Amino acid sequence: MITIVCSTNRNDALSYQISLLYQQVLADLGAESEILNLNDLPADFAFSALYENSGKNEQFNTFSTHMSQAQKYVFIVPEYNGSFPGVLKTFIDGLEYPNTFKNKKCALVGLSSGVQGGGLALSHLTDIFNYCGMNVLALKPKLARIEAHIDGDFQITNNLYMQLLKEQAEKFIEF
Amino acid sequence: MITIVCSTNRNDALSYQISLLYQQVLADLGAESEILNLNDLPADFAFSALYENSGKNEQFNTFSTHMSQAQKYVFIVPEYNGSFPGVLKTFIDGLEYPNTFKNKKCALVGLSSGVQGGGLALSHLTDIFNYCGMNVLALKPKLARIEAHIDGDFQITNNLYMQLLKEQAEKFIEF
Amino acid sequence: MITIVCSTNRNDALSYQISLLYQQVLADLGAESEILNLNDLPADFAFSALYENSGKNEQFNTFSTHMSQAQKYVFIVPEYNGSFPGVLKTFIDGLEYPNTFKNKKCALVGLSSGVQGGGLALSHLTDIFNYCGMNVLALKPKLARIEAHIDGDFQITNNLYMQLLKEQAEKFIEF
Amino acid sequence: MITIVCSTNRNDALSYQISLLYQQVLADLGAESEILNLNDLPADFAFSALYENSGKNEQFNTFSTHMSQAQKYVFIVPEYNGSFPGVLKTFIDGLEYPNTFKNKKCALVGLSSGVQGGGLALSHLTDIFNYCGMNVLALKPKLARIEAHIDGDFQITNNLYMQLLKEQAEKFIEF
Repeated sequence: MITIVCSTNRNDALSYQISLLYQQVLADLGAESEILNLNDLPADFAFSALYENSGKNEQFNTFSTHMSQAQKYVFIVPEYNGSFPGVLKTFIDGLEYPNTFKNKKCALVGLSSGVQGGGLALSHLTDIFNYCGMNVLALKPKLARIEAHIDGDFQITNNLYMQLLKEQAEKFIEF
Repeated sequence: MITIVCSTNRNDALSYQISLLYQQVLADLGAESEILNLNDLPADFAFSALYENSGKNEQFNTFSTHMSQAQKYVFIVPEYNGSFPGVLKTFIDGLEYPNTFKNKKCALVGLSSGVQGGGLALSHLTDIFNYCGMNVLALKPKLARIEAHIDGDFQITNNLYMQLLKEQAEKFIEF
Repeated sequence: MITIVCSTNRNDALSYQISLLYQQVLADLGAESEILNLNDLPADFAFSALYENSGKNEQFNTFSTHMSQAQKYVFIVPEYNGSFPGVLKTFIDGLEYPNTFKNKKCALVGLSSGVQGGGLALSHLTDIFNYCGMNVLALKPKLARIEAHIDGDFQITNNLYMQLLKEQAEKFIEF
Repeated sequence: MITIVCSTNRNDALSYQISLLYQQVLADLGAESEILNLNDLPADFAFSALYENSGKNEQFNTFSTHMSQAQKYVFIVPEYNGSFPGVLKTFIDGLEYPNTFKNKKCALVGLSSGVQGGGLALSHLTDIFNYCGMNVLALKPKLARIEAHIDGDFQITNNLYMQLLKEQAEKFIEF
């Protein structure tokens, strides 16, 4: 079972559509997955679930337990201000350290409206997950100008993008 | 007027004490400053003040206006999970883009309980602020093992650390 | 006087053509500059001019003295293997530390055949120059797919690219 | 067979001693290894073996073939100017792309005279190797102030450092 993390709390995020699409890519390869959407986090979790309040927010605890029990993660990461969404890092800051990610595995996908595709976002995240003891798959697709490569049904119309996602998913299943 | 940003929302944060100390260092050099503490942010700002809710949270708007009007910033940044606190990036994600930081100047101070002193945190932040069009002072003190170098009155007992902060403050005033 | 560093030792490098073009951009703004081309380095400098051989290679010493006396640098940086050319870092490793770059200023331009435009290369270089005490201008144009945006006379045909270079040059002159 | 790369061309480098020590750590775990020392590279390889001269330097070709045939690498990386040695990147720039590292695995060890232990060096290298398609083990020991933690027989006297190297070697054998 692979946990796909939609790494923003934005409503109607394109990242959620890409999460659904990634789930289908995995299903086509015979791999089961679930989506964890940061949009479902309690609104005040940055204050009510961190530091001395760690463990006190029941709704957040559900997320935290879920993340602790998972073994493999795919993070779908939109680029905000040249890096990952702050809410993703705040979420990580609220999880149990060091056991949540230690000796586990993840794959990263970047997306952006602009031309960078989240290159720096994925570099920063790799630093963070390596620090947490989690191995990161080398292949990290960067889906730049995502709006131009997705159709009205939220299917990716760029063949290279689809090929990269499939290649990543195949490698990740064996990682 | 320099705006010192205490870059965590943790209660009783050491970063706040370092912010006070930095304010004194600046005052000794004749520079006026104020402290903006992320602990004072509205608890649900990650949801109530970002994206389609931008501008709708009056309490957050006060912070946002304040940041827009400032010209020079010092960020006091504790290391969380090998990088900066997620709440700092979420705060940045809520500010007006691209006008908040464009063509402005900042200085960064890292602190950590561990041995790294926030080296990667400051590298990641430099990427983000450069992306936002803000120049970052090259000298970025990294105060590793901070608890061992601070006394009961929250004064830094490590001469090298104090020297680095003063040197940074001097350079930043002229930056 | 601004020193433009053509940051590769490749023969007939596009980076050299961009260096010439940048020199013209600066001239149009009334700023004098010179080009230092890493292609002119002695072929064995990585062994004959570093470490215990520091100062012993007369040809390298000319470069080293030149870099020490300069105050402002523009680095034209092609992307090799997802970062800057190794020869640029080897060159830096052969310069006098910490005096060569301390308290000086630089601007960075990235170029690539691929879609990234050297984003990570410029991030890594910013870390290195900040470590050396040199301030790096926030605006760092990333000229992706450069071959598609340059004509037979080595003029840039992409208006956005030219605009970014001019904006950077203007800011750098005042930096 | 694991290839240990002593990632500097400095004579009598401490990195070479750490390479020998790492070889012993691997041997104690039953893993065979060999050391490839960048000090043995032809002095002018940056000019005679790269770009249009690729494949023309017989001495370099031996290194290149060796690297192409290897499957797992440990890089022992001293910190120079806040990052890795330039000669390591120049060496990488001379290897066959993209086949040398694609779908292979590596582990990184940082060392420094100063307090950082090569943290940024390892972050930059991770970006580069990921770009080349090589998976990097999350655990990357950073041996700061190395001279203070090594004895006259080049044995590491710091228990934590030895423990980290052993833990890394164990994980890498199974990676």
